[in-house]
Amino acid sequence: MPIVDIHTHIYPPAYISLLKSRTTVPYIRTFPDAPNSPRLIILPGENDPATPSTSRGRPIGPEYHDIAAKIDFMDTHKINISVISLANPWLDFLPESEAAETARRINDDINDLCSKYPGRLYAFGTLPLSGSTGEVIAEIERLKSLKYMRGIIMGTSGLGRGLDDLSLDPIYAALQSTCTLIFLHPHYGLPLSVYGPRASEYGHVLPLALGFPLETTIAVTRMLLSGVWDRFQNLNVLIAHSGGTLPFLAGRIESCVAHDGFLKSEGRGEGGRRAVWDVLKKNIYLDAVIYSKVGLKAAVDASGPDRLLFGTDHPFFPPLEKGAEEWASVNTNYQAINEAFGDEEAAKGVLGGNAIRILKLNNE
Amino acid sequence: MPIVDIHTHIYPPAYISLLKSRTTVPYIRTFPDAPNSPRLIILPGENDPATPSTSRGRPIGPEYHDIAAKIDFMDTHKINISVISLANPWLDFLPESEAAETARRINDDINDLCSKYPGRLYAFGTLPLSGSTGEVIAEIERLKSLKYMRGIIMGTSGLGRGLDDLSLDPIYAALQSTCTLIFLHPHYGLPLSVYGPRASEYGHVLPLALGFPLETTIAVTRMLLSGVWDRFQNLNVLIAHSGGTLPFLAGRIESCVAHDGFLKSEGRGEGGRRAVWDVLKKNIYLDAVIYSKVGLKAAVDASGPDRLLFGTDHPFFPPLEKGAEEWASVNTNYQAINEAFGDEEAAKGVLGGNAIRILKLNNE
Repeated sequence: MPIVDIHTHIYPPAYISLLKSRTTVPYIRTFPDAPNSPRLIILPGENDPATPSTSRGRPIGPEYHDIAAKIDFMDTHKINISVISLANPWLDFLPESEAAETARRINDDINDLCSKYPGRLYAFGTLPLSGSTGEVIAEIERLKSLKYMRGIIMGTSGLGRGLDDLSLDPIYAALQSTCTLIFLHPHYGLPLSVYGPRASEYGHVLPLALGFPLETTIAVTRMLLSGVWDRFQNLNVLIAHSGGTLPFLAGRIESCVAHDGFLKSEGRGEGGRRAVWDVLKKNIYLDAVIYSKVGLKAAVDASGPDRLLFGTDHPFFPPLEKGAEEWASVNTNYQAINEAFGDEEAAKGVLGGNAIRILKLNNE
Repeated sequence: MPIVDIHTHIYPPAYISLLKSRTTVPYIRTFPDAPNSPRLIILPGENDPATPSTSRGRPIGPEYHDIAAKIDFMDTHKINISVISLANPWLDFLPESEAAETARRINDDINDLCSKYPGRLYAFGTLPLSGSTGEVIAEIERLKSLKYMRGIIMGTSGLGRGLDDLSLDPIYAALQSTCTLIFLHPHYGLPLSVYGPRASEYGHVLPLALGFPLETTIAVTRMLLSGVWDRFQNLNVLIAHSGGTLPFLAGRIESCVAHDGFLKSEGRGEGGRRAVWDVLKKNIYLDAVIYSKVGLKAAVDASGPDRLLFGTDHPFFPPLEKGAEEWASVNTNYQAINEAFGDEEAAKGVLGGNAIRILKLNNE
């Protein structure tokens, strides 16, 4: 059974050019004291000279944009197939006039990268969400004509007002009717104030370890509360980082909805909506990027062994030692799968079988 | 084996008087159109007339302050022993000059309530955190002389700058040297902006279901990152709501710490600190207030079956149907324990054995 990585990012040539042409987040820049070391500045808190621990973003090397480096990485870790996706923040920041054309160019770029390694690469496309709704829907439909596309990757801001925005309904409708999977991925984190006055002493840890999964959890819960899956019962979403924290908190969310005085008064408490558990088992897929047996088992208990999909988050979390071949972050995820499932059939599904079935990767 | 509830709140007479004397959050008030229905307004977002769904807080009845109602509730749900605690926001809001005296009065009040039902009630005390450090330490020591006290309950703000504040070290030292358990409980949630423009349509759900556990997770992670448990290796903390989301995210936190460029440059990445998993198994206890088998199993996998303790969160999450005897929120937690552990020995530990051993409830 092949191993499939469904959470692995790439900045294709068209996107690298875009980031280099910019002077505000997100962008690629150098600093005067290191003119040959380009840095990628993408997170909201990464542009503040007052926090030297994070103000320079991260070094950006070939692993970010060179598809040959991706294939090397796959070979090192015995990954047969990767479903690549543009990394955050995608096209969220583009002016309306540039969104549609840029999305087409980047999606074509990524599809071309896949065509260079037949059978080894597929992709999630990117939507021009700052464009018009018509342009977004047109790109959803156009992606169906690109041979290697298997869904779209999307952040939590939607059209700027989050994923519970009713203006997204025509887009959700188009995604559902074209059977396009959403890969939901965080980027914006939480307001930096929540990390307190010592946050800069902890590098990127709080925004990455907590901000990302907590942002995801809030976004999905808002979708649940606004009834997205009541209106679009066949809309499928693959949630990054094993659902943020949704598997762990699903019971608390259910209980709080059922007990809420206001929702009860509106008839939206216990009945009149699909339960979180029902959506988890019918509409939600989870990646296996949670770095522990504890998290994986909770993810599978919540959604099912046929709904969990291996991922690496490459090229983020590079090897711990300079020049090391193997990536500790990837091996931690492999080890967690081994500890959680051993030789059980479920392990094969998580490592590749589920992705092949769900994303139709044998169906060129 | 008796059943012990370690997460159950009370507003003793001295605290009710305090809340009634106030005119800003937190306080108890009535509204002109319902002069006989006092409402408890405690959460930061509950005082805004622009959000009618939550602006009136919640009705406050005898279950909040009448200890006989607590005993009735315990009898209904076959709870033998309760370890009661002042509910949030405790004394965080008091001016410095009033903190110490108020804490003494309220702790004495709660200890007196326990003495009325020997063998059935114990308590976590409250610290005058807005007072001087000397006053806080004096109250920690004084609590040792109160017969029914078995630890202290505390929020996430500490002295106002969070629990990674080095100014807390003398207080952590006093808690450790007196073997005083901290029951860590959320109150402040997250900035309301994270819930988006439609938040008021969802009643209290987002702040309660997500804000509470996410606040807790951030607070504990800040403690970990600041090295609280490296400096105080015997400091024990019972975390509300099964640790917020800590069991699920522990692997991601470990991975992000190990990979952080800034922490690595300071020698605080992989080594030079205790791992999250080590702290979870030696210093952290978790309550079983997570409303699902999925969450409970993750909590036990992360910390151990001898470290999980049954709780109800009474008097919050009252019966779903008016006049119903049984509380659905409690039965959901009982059912989760049954589904997770069945007849195993672990079930007895979670339901009461662990609390009796850890809190020395047989040792009057």
